[in-house]
Amino acid sequence: MIERVCVVGAGVIGSLFAGHLARVADVSCLVRRTDHARALNEAGLQVSGRHEFVGPVTAATDAGELEEPDLVLVCTKATGLEGAAAALAGHFPGATVMTTQNGLGAEEILRAHGEWPIVSAVTFMSGTKHSDTHVEYVLDTETWMGPYENTPFETVEEIARLLTAAELTAEAMPDLRPAQWSKLIFNATVNGVAALTGLPHDFHFADSGHMGGLVEELMAEGKRVAAAAGVELRDDPWEMNVLATQRGSAHFPSMLEDVEAGRPTEVELINGALVREAERAGVDAPLQTALYALIRGREASYS
Amino acid sequence: MIERVCVVGAGVIGSLFAGHLARVADVSCLVRRTDHARALNEAGLQVSGRHEFVGPVTAATDAGELEEPDLVLVCTKATGLEGAAAALAGHFPGATVMTTQNGLGAEEILRAHGEWPIVSAVTFMSGTKHSDTHVEYVLDTETWMGPYENTPFETVEEIARLLTAAELTAEAMPDLRPAQWSKLIFNATVNGVAALTGLPHDFHFADSGHMGGLVEELMAEGKRVAAAAGVELRDDPWEMNVLATQRGSAHFPSMLEDVEAGRPTEVELINGALVREAERAGVDAPLQTALYALIRGREASYS
Repeated sequence: MIERVCVVGAGVIGSLFAGHLARVADVSCLVRRTDHARALNEAGLQVSGRHEFVGPVTAATDAGELEEPDLVLVCTKATGLEGAAAALAGHFPGATVMTTQNGLGAEEILRAHGEWPIVSAVTFMSGTKHSDTHVEYVLDTETWMGPYENTPFETVEEIARLLTAAELTAEAMPDLRPAQWSKLIFNATVNGVAALTGLPHDFHFADSGHMGGLVEELMAEGKRVAAAAGVELRDDPWEMNVLATQRGSAHFPSMLEDVEAGRPTEVELINGALVREAERAGVDAPLQTALYALIRGREASYS
Repeated sequence: MIERVCVVGAGVIGSLFAGHLARVADVSCLVRRTDHARALNEAGLQVSGRHEFVGPVTAATDAGELEEPDLVLVCTKATGLEGAAAALAGHFPGATVMTTQNGLGAEEILRAHGEWPIVSAVTFMSGTKHSDTHVEYVLDTETWMGPYENTPFETVEEIARLLTAAELTAEAMPDLRPAQWSKLIFNATVNGVAALTGLPHDFHFADSGHMGGLVEELMAEGKRVAAAAGVELRDDPWEMNVLATQRGSAHFPSMLEDVEAGRPTEVELINGALVREAERAGVDAPLQTALYALIRGREASYS
C-alpha cells in the first residue's frame, strides 16, 4: 500500500506528478535549491490547465530531512540523474524507485547508487512551469510503466492505480522495452533534428521532401537497431511522428530548448544510447551516428 | 589587353579584387545600394592588413552608367548571383565574365542571362569588411581560374597575369574542375557541419572522435561522387581539412555566419549541387543528403 511518495526534481514532470499525487498520498519533494523547497513548503503546488487545484507538499534539499516514502519518482532531466541518484544513496531502503527519464540507461545509473526495487517509466505528459510552485498541465497523455530486473509486476500495477486515482493517465506493462524503444527512436530523431535545425516538431518532419525523407531514414535505422536488439516496438516511430505533426500546434522539443539556452542536452541517454545499442548489436546506423556527432558538436560550441 | 575591370558586388571578395586591381587597371564597381556607390566614388577602396593602400574606383547601381569593361568579376555571394546576372543582362557584350562563387553551377546561372565568354574561378582569399570603403586583407591565399565552354585558355592566363600584377595570388588552370570539386567537397562538409553545430572550423573537425569521423565520412562520400562524375580531385578535401585545422586561428565559415544572422545560405550551389551531382552520377550519398536536408531545415526555421 503506497501512502507516501517522494518526488525527486520538481521541474515540469516532477511538479505534475507531485501536485496530482498530493490529492491521494502524502507527497514530499526533494529539490536542489533551498528557496525552491521553502516556496513549496509555504504554498504547495498549484496545478492549472486541464486540472485546477493546489496540492500540499513537504519539501527539502536533503533526503535525510524527509520521512521515508514507499515510492520515489525520479523526475530530473537525464542530465540531472547522476546527481539525483547520488542524493538518494543510503536513503529510503524500503522504497521502490521509479525512473521517468527519456532514453535508455536511467535504471543502470540509479542501480549504481542503491539496491532499491526499480520501476521503469516513460511519460508523454507535458506542461509549462510558470513558477516554482505553479505548473500548467497541458497534455494529459500517458505514463507507461514496467518492472526492471526482479521488481514484481504487482508493484507496477499498484503505482499505475495510484496515478490513475490522482487523475493522471497511466498504464502498467509487463515489459516496458517495446514502448521505451519506440519513444527512444522517436526522441533521438525528432529531438535531434529539431535541435540542429531550430524547427519545432512541425509539418516539415513528415513532408515529402528532403526533411521528411531524412526523418523517415533516421527512424528506419532506429527500427533496424531495435530488431537487432530483439525488441519488438510497441508503436512505429514514423507513425508517431506523422500523427504528432498532424496535431494542431507544433511541439517545441526540450533538446531544442536546451541548445537555444546553451544548456547540456539529454543527448547521451537518447542519441548516445541508440548509437551504443547499434554498436552492441552490430548494426550500421550512419545517420543516427551523424546526428549524435552533430549534437555533441553543438554542445562543444557553447564554450 | 585588359584595361578596364568591372567588379560586381563589393563585399569582402569584391572589395579585395577591386581595391587591388585599381592599381593596375581602371576599376568600376556595380553595387546594389546608392549610398554604397556614392561612398566608393568619394573615398575609393581602402585596403589594409597584408597590403596598405587606397584604390580609386568608379561605382554605380546600374550597369548602363558604367563604361564598358574588358573583364567583369562577379563577386556576389551565391545567393546574390541571380540578381547580379540579371543586372548584367544586355550590357557589356564585348567583355569576358568571371564567376567566383563557391560551389557549382554559377556559370549556368550567368549563361542564362548573356553570351559573354565565361571564366570559372574559385578563391581562397579572405578578409574582413570594416565599412563600405574599407576591407582588411587577411589571408593572401590563391585564386584559381579556368576556361568555361569555349573561352580560350589565353584569356584565363591574361586574367591571372593581371591579378598577379595587382599583387594578388592567382593561377590559371586548363581545367578548373579538379580544384573546384576539391573546394566543393571541402565547403559542403565544413560549412555544413559548422552551420549546424555552431563550431568554427577548429580542431573538432579532425579529432579522433565522432566529429572527426563524421567529417571524414562526409568527405569520403564527396570523393565517391567526384570519382563517379569523372573528376580527378586536385587536392584531397580531408587533407585540406586537417591542414586548415592545424593553422593557428579557427576560421568562421560564411554559412555559420549566415545561419546565425538568419540569412539565406549558399546551400543550393554547395550542398544542393553536390547532392544533385550524386543523383546524376547514380551514387549514394546519404550523409551529404542528410546535411543538405538539415541546413535547408535550418533555413526553414527562420520564418
